[in-house]
Amino acid sequence: MALELEPIVKVRTYEEVVHRIQDEILSGRLRGGDRLPGERRLSEMLGVSRPTLREALRVLETLEILEPSVRSGPDGGPLVRAKPGEALYHLLRTQLALHHYSMRDLVETRYSLEVAAVAWAARRAQPEHIERLEGIVARMREPGLDRETYNELDTSFHASIAPATGNALIGQLMFSIRGAIKDEMLDTFERVADWDETRDRLTAEHSAILDAIKGGDVARGEQVVRTHLIDFEPRWRAEAPTDGSTVSS
Amino acid sequence: MALELEPIVKVRTYEEVVHRIQDEILSGRLRGGDRLPGERRLSEMLGVSRPTLREALRVLETLEILEPSVRSGPDGGPLVRAKPGEALYHLLRTQLALHHYSMRDLVETRYSLEVAAVAWAARRAQPEHIERLEGIVARMREPGLDRETYNELDTSFHASIAPATGNALIGQLMFSIRGAIKDEMLDTFERVADWDETRDRLTAEHSAILDAIKGGDVARGEQVVRTHLIDFEPRWRAEAPTDGSTVSS
Repeated sequence: MALELEPIVKVRTYEEVVHRIQDEILSGRLRGGDRLPGERRLSEMLGVSRPTLREALRVLETLEILEPSVRSGPDGGPLVRAKPGEALYHLLRTQLALHHYSMRDLVETRYSLEVAAVAWAARRAQPEHIERLEGIVARMREPGLDRETYNELDTSFHASIAPATGNALIGQLMFSIRGAIKDEMLDTFERVADWDETRDRLTAEHSAILDAIKGGDVARGEQVVRTHLIDFEPRWRAEAPTDGSTVSS
Repeated sequence: MALELEPIVKVRTYEEVVHRIQDEILSGRLRGGDRLPGERRLSEMLGVSRPTLREALRVLETLEILEPSVRSGPDGGPLVRAKPGEALYHLLRTQLALHHYSMRDLVETRYSLEVAAVAWAARRAQPEHIERLEGIVARMREPGLDRETYNELDTSFHASIAPATGNALIGQLMFSIRGAIKDEMLDTFERVADWDETRDRLTAEHSAILDAIKGGDVARGEQVVRTHLIDFEPRWRAEAPTDGSTVSS
């Protein structure tokens, strides 16, 4: 048999530390809410220098595996995160800036996720979610709202659909993508010439989305959110149908 | 006027370095493909120690802003990434392990994204995408395929829809979520009792999805992929309708 030798893959020490902690989590031995020992003890246990350990901790914080520790000393070790933070948002935002994705990619993905979110919300929204959405639509109806105030209410409306979906990941993706394209969205608001008319139409659309969620009408919800998003995003009009259930392009 | 003082927010040095590099990218001064100076020069420019600089570089690599540098010396500085890597996949995988998201959250989000992807692919697929999908369906029709081989073809089929969407982010999200739930999916394949019958049904469904994409039929594509995914994921049967365009729950 001919001798076969796999090439040696150089793994940097901090990466080994990251993998060790990740393995503990993937195997379930380390869970959200657990606290690791302090830096000195950790570096002794792992047999690595403090600077190398810190490189690993920074990576684990960036991946939202660990919370940055705020205390020092033996009981001040980093905490394993129990909830997602903003890592996904920061990742998408920089990937957009680096042109890993185009603005169109994000706008279209947001479109698809919003349609999905309204459909899930129509199946699962609880009274407290409906109440919150009703409160926002009531405020949208107040006469004479300016673009900035209306844009904030619009953001709250879409953000309040997320918890009604009963799906934490769809909500997090919507929040992250919306955050990454928010400057673009504000620009769109500011370019609208006939603001009073646009505002009234948007309020009618938000109200129709709310009615579909309230009535548990999945198909109607999907249809109105499609119309709502496409109306306000003229640059896709050539690409996306107003109602995916009847159009084939 | 009463004196008001904002509390001092402690920013760690490595974070300042991360922000400085991010700002250069968000402002467009630093682009994908650019190379930063080597570590020694960078630490001099920024006035930070080498260990601190390295903490920042690790964070920037984790966020896929920089590629890990493989050379040392003044010309061996890190490269600004021009393409997304697997950061999103790793982030979702660890967030799943930490129960930031449930398996149901991921399975449902995959469902919504696959429906969206087939719809975009039906609008935009090019001949080379169709050809690739046809090749995979032809292989699925070969008699007597075992679960493992079929599962690989199934993965290729869904992965080959991604480039046909013309949307890099939807593709990346599908890849990342599919990777995060792949063990669970393999389990589902292994639990199927009537394998020959199931395989024939799955092939008919894949073929129907392909026909809808080929024919540019968005509504039909959405409908068949919904049926396809729900058929194979019995745990949602109670929650998701087989056809969102006709069912209200």
